[in-house]
Amino acid sequence: MGFWKSFFSSSDAASGQTQFEGEAIEGTIDRTDNTSRIFFSTDRDIDLYELEELCDAVGWSRRPMRKVKKAIQHSFLVTSMWQQRGNTKRLIGFARATSDHAFNATIWDVVVHPDFQTKGLGKALMKYMIRKLRNEDISNITLFADPHVVNFYRRMGFMADPEGIKGMFWYPD
Amino acid sequence: MGFWKSFFSSSDAASGQTQFEGEAIEGTIDRTDNTSRIFFSTDRDIDLYELEELCDAVGWSRRPMRKVKKAIQHSFLVTSMWQQRGNTKRLIGFARATSDHAFNATIWDVVVHPDFQTKGLGKALMKYMIRKLRNEDISNITLFADPHVVNFYRRMGFMADPEGIKGMFWYPD
Repeated sequence: MGFWKSFFSSSDAASGQTQFEGEAIEGTIDRTDNTSRIFFSTDRDIDLYELEELCDAVGWSRRPMRKVKKAIQHSFLVTSMWQQRGNTKRLIGFARATSDHAFNATIWDVVVHPDFQTKGLGKALMKYMIRKLRNEDISNITLFADPHVVNFYRRMGFMADPEGIKGMFWYPD
Repeated sequence: MGFWKSFFSSSDAASGQTQFEGEAIEGTIDRTDNTSRIFFSTDRDIDLYELEELCDAVGWSRRPMRKVKKAIQHSFLVTSMWQQRGNTKRLIGFARATSDHAFNATIWDVVVHPDFQTKGLGKALMKYMIRKLRNEDISNITLFADPHVVNFYRRMGFMADPEGIKGMFWYPD
């Protein structure tokens, strides 16, 4: 776990600086004899059934696959997180962002498989997203956080209601 | 003012139903002898200097025109509001939305020229945006509201922090 510990040191939690090299993070995250590699991808060609399975695992309501496909296609950034063991890879995380490609990006659908939670991977996924968005010169990164993850995002450097700005929602009747 | 009064009756304020026909709203909004027409457009070919002037009028910080152009180009929906008198038209309002084209849209940069505020035009602009987004089957319409406009959006049917969901921001250091 030494690698992960140093990787997610608190000193860079809110700075937007990351210690990533290339598209992959590699590390031994199991305490078994198996060595696995964790990597990120921005490839949008994701198996939608595999993504649905991941979202099912965290208890999200199912959404029409046709719409999920469209949303992925029209997101500014799509990140998937994978575990690779030998020749097999498993989708273990996902996040995407909409954007105007200039000022604002909004992060949606952040998910980490329960088997891989509490290992710092949610944080790694978010840091990857932030780095990618910053590389595109996006300076205002926003999201809407459910109450139980507000503190997680706070630790990542996100601020709730800065200067009294309120996140607001309109739903159809 | 009768037209506007009936147009913005409270009964449909939060329903998402609008009384718009076509792209234009016409109405006599002046108490002078001049008759003017107010209309909306989703044409992105907006004079950026005219837009800057509008944003200056409400005291917004200037932003690089190159980035404003890019943001307009990559927004899902761009709405401008115009006053036409004879052959001259004046940009009096603006709003845009980013989206994944499927589930979520986020409204940004809502502005109405001070000369045209308190006439229900901000509400008309927002209703136009909501109608357009609903026509595209977007069901989750979000925005980040400055404290002084939270109640304006509330009256439009937007909810702040529903179920404890928090709007959060990340800015670079």
